[in-house]
Amino acid sequence: MSQQVYSAPKVNKELGKQVSDYINSLTKPLGSLGRLEEIAIKLAEMKNEAFPSVEPPGVLVFAADHGITDEGVSSYPQAVTAQMVHNFLSGGAAINVFSRQIGAYLNIIDIGVAQDIEHSSLINQKVRYGTANFYREDAMTREEAEKAIEVGYEQGLDIINKGCQCLILGEMGIGNTSASSAILAVLSNRDVTSLVGTGTGISQESLVHKVEVIKESIYKRNPNPQDPIDIISKVGGLEIAGMAGAMLAAASNRIPILLDGFICTIAGLLAKEISPNSADYMIVTHQSVEPGHQLAIALLGKKPILDLGLRLGEGTGAAIAYPIIQSATLMLKEMATFDSAGVSTKK
Amino acid sequence: MSQQVYSAPKVNKELGKQVSDYINSLTKPLGSLGRLEEIAIKLAEMKNEAFPSVEPPGVLVFAADHGITDEGVSSYPQAVTAQMVHNFLSGGAAINVFSRQIGAYLNIIDIGVAQDIEHSSLINQKVRYGTANFYREDAMTREEAEKAIEVGYEQGLDIINKGCQCLILGEMGIGNTSASSAILAVLSNRDVTSLVGTGTGISQESLVHKVEVIKESIYKRNPNPQDPIDIISKVGGLEIAGMAGAMLAAASNRIPILLDGFICTIAGLLAKEISPNSADYMIVTHQSVEPGHQLAIALLGKKPILDLGLRLGEGTGAAIAYPIIQSATLMLKEMATFDSAGVSTKK
Repeated sequence: MSQQVYSAPKVNKELGKQVSDYINSLTKPLGSLGRLEEIAIKLAEMKNEAFPSVEPPGVLVFAADHGITDEGVSSYPQAVTAQMVHNFLSGGAAINVFSRQIGAYLNIIDIGVAQDIEHSSLINQKVRYGTANFYREDAMTREEAEKAIEVGYEQGLDIINKGCQCLILGEMGIGNTSASSAILAVLSNRDVTSLVGTGTGISQESLVHKVEVIKESIYKRNPNPQDPIDIISKVGGLEIAGMAGAMLAAASNRIPILLDGFICTIAGLLAKEISPNSADYMIVTHQSVEPGHQLAIALLGKKPILDLGLRLGEGTGAAIAYPIIQSATLMLKEMATFDSAGVSTKK
Repeated sequence: MSQQVYSAPKVNKELGKQVSDYINSLTKPLGSLGRLEEIAIKLAEMKNEAFPSVEPPGVLVFAADHGITDEGVSSYPQAVTAQMVHNFLSGGAAINVFSRQIGAYLNIIDIGVAQDIEHSSLINQKVRYGTANFYREDAMTREEAEKAIEVGYEQGLDIINKGCQCLILGEMGIGNTSASSAILAVLSNRDVTSLVGTGTGISQESLVHKVEVIKESIYKRNPNPQDPIDIISKVGGLEIAGMAGAMLAAASNRIPILLDGFICTIAGLLAKEISPNSADYMIVTHQSVEPGHQLAIALLGKKPILDLGLRLGEGTGAAIAYPIIQSATLMLKEMATFDSAGVSTKK
């Protein structure tokens, strides 16, 4: 097994200061575009460009199944993962709609769906047929975890080489809020209870059961909090590892990463564990309803852009937020300065 | 003087219920697109269409001056209003950038700039050369207030007739946070102190002065809180009246109104006073930094979509939020249903 070293360059803080000064020369009251100004500065630092562009965005949706669904932690049957992959390939899912809206490249990757799916547009990179039930055994081997990260990394490189200027990661995997909650509990050393939510919509009774299953699974699997690969292999998900890998590819190429909701942010935390600098390339696009998301965002040291009560996944929240990030770049690129427009500055 | 009666049809709540049921059949967990689902339902109710469209948006920017600037309430000289109109006409202001981004029709209307502006693209509907200093005399006559509303109404009709499917109102007018704060204090019967902010960026010392000027002006002008035309004529602004008029045109044509920040929301409150149903056609796009905005939004009974620390005006916040509203319509129009996509529903 390869021991690939993932690394990301430092962001250019010096350029950020210059861009901040430039923004202050644009024809608008000082600071009046609020977070847009912050976003523009961050993008410049990431891309090492005074006038960074995020067009076109790339969207990668990783799909995989979770053995933990055997324990009744989800409100949807496992078959929905494959059914939704078909929906992605037919263009009818939410992420298809929003990807078209923002002119994104969209790739769907089978990194571990429990059944075979034949489709000319599907990228088949199946590492295994779903994870094992981590309540009873490790979700996957260490080699499989590393392989899933590599698959994600390669898919990230691939879409970046096609020209995408920012990266949105999405996922589909019935049961993946359970895996994500387990990963977060291990990384944060917090009790599972406060982190677990209703996922796609289970009852309060099922929620109590879900918490118990995850708690006991962590106890039995005992992942090493210092070792992200160990965490992934013991309680993780293939699509989560894939997303983390793609983020590492983006960060190593100075491509901004637009984080979606809970599961995606967990992948972001894993990427940060693997390569700390990679977090500097992440923008948290929205605050999800899932209870653990707030803690995950805090652990990344970020502030979400939107708070719209979203909890869909697939990368949808990031796609919905993308135009705001684009607005920030256009402000920088297209607005006149006080000088160029002949507008008086403050008295 | 004409006594035009402005009225808006009732929104179709019954259709809203049908659209809500339809959204629950789309391939996503129930309610998982949060506020997007609410927005889609509202738009259907407003437009009386099961699959409402908001494309293309129309943006009207009304520009006018304020005599109250003589009292030193603003950090920019009055001449900036005209200079910024030139900037709008050259395409270099923030609202130009964001209007291009969202493919909007954009019209710039001189409804009361203190100096003459010659430009082939400018719509000249000057009601008067700026308002009078309302610290010393009424801002305008009752007839001028009615005329400014009519100008706005006609401009609204005009851009709607060109095909715009939703309306964004913007303003430019040095001193207009003072007029807006005065209007809000009268409408809400609240003390001015808590409503007044730093506008485009005055000092704390100037802020105290601004509060005193507005307080005393209200006392001296004594507008009738039950009479929106009286409020406008005594402490209002021409561009604020114009925006209110354009909103009345939108509401009477079932065209959704995307409210921008503080000043625009004050115009929304005035439109609601003139025609209560018109408020049902308003969507508050963002929470501005200006202190009075929160109260103004509450008086309209709305919840903002974005909270990005914006305080620029010109309609920019609404333009930045527009793609999210568009996302809501595309969700409705383009997503597959569980049935059509062959995806299993909940267990």
